[in-house]
Amino acid sequence: MHNPVVIEALRGALVESQHRGAVAVFDAEGARVLTIGDVDRPIYPRSAVKALRALVLMEAGAVERFGLQKEELALACASHGGEPDHIAGVVAMLARAGLDEGALLYGKHWPLHQPSALALARSGGTASALHNNCSGKHAGFLCAACAMGCDPTNYVDPSHPVQQAVKAVLEALGGEAIPDAHRGVDGCSVPTFAMSLTALARAFARFGTGHGLPRERAAAARSLRAACAARPWHVAGTGRFCTEVMTSLRSRVFVKAGAEGVYCAALPEQGLGLALKIDDGASRAAEAAIATVIARFLPRDDAGRAALEGFARPVLRNWNRTPIGALKPSPALLCC
Amino acid sequence: MHNPVVIEALRGALVESQHRGAVAVFDAEGARVLTIGDVDRPIYPRSAVKALRALVLMEAGAVERFGLQKEELALACASHGGEPDHIAGVVAMLARAGLDEGALLYGKHWPLHQPSALALARSGGTASALHNNCSGKHAGFLCAACAMGCDPTNYVDPSHPVQQAVKAVLEALGGEAIPDAHRGVDGCSVPTFAMSLTALARAFARFGTGHGLPRERAAAARSLRAACAARPWHVAGTGRFCTEVMTSLRSRVFVKAGAEGVYCAALPEQGLGLALKIDDGASRAAEAAIATVIARFLPRDDAGRAALEGFARPVLRNWNRTPIGALKPSPALLCC
Repeated sequence: MHNPVVIEALRGALVESQHRGAVAVFDAEGARVLTIGDVDRPIYPRSAVKALRALVLMEAGAVERFGLQKEELALACASHGGEPDHIAGVVAMLARAGLDEGALLYGKHWPLHQPSALALARSGGTASALHNNCSGKHAGFLCAACAMGCDPTNYVDPSHPVQQAVKAVLEALGGEAIPDAHRGVDGCSVPTFAMSLTALARAFARFGTGHGLPRERAAAARSLRAACAARPWHVAGTGRFCTEVMTSLRSRVFVKAGAEGVYCAALPEQGLGLALKIDDGASRAAEAAIATVIARFLPRDDAGRAALEGFARPVLRNWNRTPIGALKPSPALLCC
Repeated sequence: MHNPVVIEALRGALVESQHRGAVAVFDAEGARVLTIGDVDRPIYPRSAVKALRALVLMEAGAVERFGLQKEELALACASHGGEPDHIAGVVAMLARAGLDEGALLYGKHWPLHQPSALALARSGGTASALHNNCSGKHAGFLCAACAMGCDPTNYVDPSHPVQQAVKAVLEALGGEAIPDAHRGVDGCSVPTFAMSLTALARAFARFGTGHGLPRERAAAARSLRAACAARPWHVAGTGRFCTEVMTSLRSRVFVKAGAEGVYCAALPEQGLGLALKIDDGASRAAEAAIATVIARFLPRDDAGRAALEGFARPVLRNWNRTPIGALKPSPALLCC
């Protein structure tokens, strides 16, 4: 099945590049609201499901046990830019469980936020595991392991109780069993579980509303959404999509990017869950597409829509800041 | 028309992302050798035609006038990483025409080569126009303008004699007129002219062989190819595709990347020109695809093939350097 073109990149009068993809919007009862393209094929959601993974942290009782703060819960759901206050938050989170950077089991990289990377170099610093965009999620896994009373060593292994619990949460919320063949290894060495866009949209509708979830899980989801709405900068960083959109729309939207062109979102007031994947994995197209789809389901007079419009149809500029083109949603994304 | 999938990105047992595209291979007489997908639609070749643009520099007599060296000719054809010796070469080139960085009319950016950017920050330096990946091309335009005896001011304007000469060269080599509607603005503020992959492949077959070109132009093309084969590091930089492939295959291949998923190449011994565009603009797919197509046309026992194989089927690793998947050419790219 050919997924349709959902985003076009224009330069001058011509379409320079185009991005195909699939979109699923479902409600918390599991009913289809909108689908575009193939929403049944398993895709790796990557970091787009970090908030669902963080349910394990909540259900382990780590908030009470370690006194985790809102910004730390937001970091557990984050793909952060490695800005100094992100790092400070992760260090604090690890310290609450009696751990430090040495417990993090994945490679180091320079901050994704270029000004922070350059400032780190200027100050004589170097890349560390803390700067990895996933360090908050890993601090969350480690706090979960400690709160569950199990050995945190090798917490990234698929057989570790934390990763087993993550898989069980994803299966329960998505309503789909995840076979072993649908398990890959993520950029930060933890398992990533492929799921259909249908299952992902249903999972986020449930995450956003609590409908159909056990009482404790519904409360955990509400706390995570509230933390991200209160501390959106900790979910991504300066100028980035998830931060900007949640800063504008607050608790009316939860949205999270995943690598290789994935976004998942929840619109609690509308009772909807959204999931999309760009076939080719392009972040620019995934951003423009999720901004377009979220805007379709918000009230016309919502003051937060302006932030979405800038991401849905960004003007492309060159190094001189001269406009040279734009991204725009295709008819398939606007009309289906 | 749907272009076929040409490159797949695997993670674990699943295809995570896929890239569609079109490929044209023509000979210097203009005959079709291989086409995949739509090779008639105009696409912006971006930096993939820098060597064709540099013919204007050669034909202006700049080599004799300014005593340009091989590495400077390679820089005129380059998208360099902003490593220190790239910058030194561009400074030298500008000085030969009595100019300096102030003549460069486009925005500044930090070196694309991350170790060079971090070293620059560590030493207290900052981004400049010299670090822009196109600074060698611009130094070439300025030398061309000076050698032609025309005012170099505003050399990026479509009406400037240098840009008019560039357009005439592209039309002559490609055998297609370029209407005004097919002119866009490039990342570095010069005009970029959309052409079909057919025209681009024919142009590079002529550039690679000299067949069908006036004697002076054929000699200019030969000098540029020889300069890039002798100084491949100056065409891109440490570890980059064009540099690695031309280092391995020397004068047997000329290859150059363009932004948004474009590659053009010439195989002089086979008398072929190659051009491809990935629909979504992904560099990773363009690299894997051009490596695959070049390898198809080289002798089976060519010792330079090994460098291509690593780019055609790269193993994807995460931050821990653990293999998590691979890129691979699709049947459409291997069998048509």
